[in-house]
Amino acid sequence: MQPLTNEQVARYGVEPGWRYAFEREVRWSDLDGFSHVNHCAHFGWFEDARNGYLEALGFPLVDADVPGPVIKETSCSYERSLSFRSPFLVTARTKWFGTTSFQMEYAIWSDGLIARGFAIAVWLRSRDSQKFPLPDSLCAAMAADGAQPRQSLVPGGAAKT
Amino acid sequence: MQPLTNEQVARYGVEPGWRYAFEREVRWSDLDGFSHVNHCAHFGWFEDARNGYLEALGFPLVDADVPGPVIKETSCSYERSLSFRSPFLVTARTKWFGTTSFQMEYAIWSDGLIARGFAIAVWLRSRDSQKFPLPDSLCAAMAADGAQPRQSLVPGGAAKT
Amino acid sequence: MQPLTNEQVARYGVEPGWRYAFEREVRWSDLDGFSHVNHCAHFGWFEDARNGYLEALGFPLVDADVPGPVIKETSCSYERSLSFRSPFLVTARTKWFGTTSFQMEYAIWSDGLIARGFAIAVWLRSRDSQKFPLPDSLCAAMAADGAQPRQSLVPGGAAKT
Amino acid sequence: MQPLTNEQVARYGVEPGWRYAFEREVRWSDLDGFSHVNHCAHFGWFEDARNGYLEALGFPLVDADVPGPVIKETSCSYERSLSFRSPFLVTARTKWFGTTSFQMEYAIWSDGLIARGFAIAVWLRSRDSQKFPLPDSLCAAMAADGAQPRQSLVPGGAAKT
Repeated sequence: MQPLTNEQVARYGVEPGWRYAFEREVRWSDLDGFSHVNHCAHFGWFEDARNGYLEALGFPLVDADVPGPVIKETSCSYERSLSFRSPFLVTARTKWFGTTSFQMEYAIWSDGLIARGFAIAVWLRSRDSQKFPLPDSLCAAMAADGAQPRQSLVPGGAAKT
Repeated sequence: MQPLTNEQVARYGVEPGWRYAFEREVRWSDLDGFSHVNHCAHFGWFEDARNGYLEALGFPLVDADVPGPVIKETSCSYERSLSFRSPFLVTARTKWFGTTSFQMEYAIWSDGLIARGFAIAVWLRSRDSQKFPLPDSLCAAMAADGAQPRQSLVPGGAAKT
Repeated sequence: MQPLTNEQVARYGVEPGWRYAFEREVRWSDLDGFSHVNHCAHFGWFEDARNGYLEALGFPLVDADVPGPVIKETSCSYERSLSFRSPFLVTARTKWFGTTSFQMEYAIWSDGLIARGFAIAVWLRSRDSQKFPLPDSLCAAMAADGAQPRQSLVPGGAAKT
Repeated sequence: MQPLTNEQVARYGVEPGWRYAFEREVRWSDLDGFSHVNHCAHFGWFEDARNGYLEALGFPLVDADVPGPVIKETSCSYERSLSFRSPFLVTARTKWFGTTSFQMEYAIWSDGLIARGFAIAVWLRSRDSQKFPLPDSLCAAMAADGAQPRQSLVPGGAAKT
């Protein structure tokens, strides 16, 4: 895990509660025709964050024969735009984990919040699209990063996804 | 408007209720390292749908000095993956329109539903990030496509965005 | 092969000598921060042209276990820029074919020439990076499209690549 | 300028003669369907190198009203492929400068040479596509980085571009 430093918290205006983070700079190819970062670019940064975060927890993307995260749904809400060469920070964490799926939360920071995103991912073997249970050690690492088991979030507590 | 034809409805397995549509084919550059369409590609297709739809309603993207749609939030949920060269259909419609914002819904079809997306857009002049009221003729065109005025969707009916 | 029609020749201002062609329109995501098509977009169009052209000749991209084209070098020269929503035509043909490699030429047309590109591709099995001879039927199809055997282009005529 | 360090030279296997350099890592979005870096990604890295290099020489991209580099032609030749998460180094330098144009050379390094590219850029005001002479201070900075005035490269020495 590349843990967020106090210097990064101050520099990018990050809210408390994030550990995994990396720095980037807006590329020319991230811009749209009005010279703002295109809203699709954020999903690419979230993807890098998810891959880096899972690798930091011991589960790098390997190949299509090894189960890994496949996005079931994702969203982003945008607070402010970024311009060319702006430095920014990407943060990621797990919100909850179930039996075969988990939800991640992402944020982009530059002088405070730029955008916030979510994704629900299923643990899937890409080759044959078969679902697998999340490995125990992955769940333990997510819990250590602050994630909740999903059943604890659902009224009645019995739901499993 | 490029209206959905009966032939397209049958060919792509489209649910009723959509009018605006266009056909595409999966490009090599849409694929990720496991040979599936990357989940970010869908947001690019939705962007093309939004631009084409608004142009069809009489409001093409012009330049940074003319108000147009800026994405405030967007989401996508994925049902099935697409592979290289798969033909697919993109559909778009407006769900609601408020004073300065509106919500669009999108779907991707290929032998039935592939993915469904939403976006809330604000009517903004890009040059100075100033919000503008949605033009009456745009609201009328959205209503003619089945969209609801937003206040009619909110309990009490007085909310404006 | 999707052969170039007389209507396309007239509409896009195409020079004689091209057969394979398809039409496109500039996407919002093709633009850079100055509202011109980014010069990288052309290489994506050339890629689509190469894949479509080879499929038209009977050699679609299949998977990493089947030999196919891998780019060894490529170039593009730009005559004029394209703006948002501009319709354009992409053309492709083979210049020469050798033992395990061939050269393709591409062009983009919209009111005359927009850009011209070249690529030398090697016939490679992606899984293990092993080179294979170009299939005879592929060479025959390229020759039928006007391509020259490479040795006929080289002084002495003995060179093979 | 972010000058190449001895540590980088050793780590990435860089040939002598380069000064400007930056490090990157292969992103998931750089891969094609066969899990290799797509050959288009290199042009995006070269673009970042050109922008960063010119900024380092005192000429950052500003806006469409200020003359800057517009690509007239570009090429890349590929030695080896890169896979997911591979770290690599991008280097850039100027080969020659003329009256209104210059040629840059780029290379990608990871355990030796991965790819090499060139681009001829024209100094253009994007708003109205008007050419401008290269500023003297830019030429001086390019010369200090090892670039040749173009006329010195041409037989007779009188050519100007």
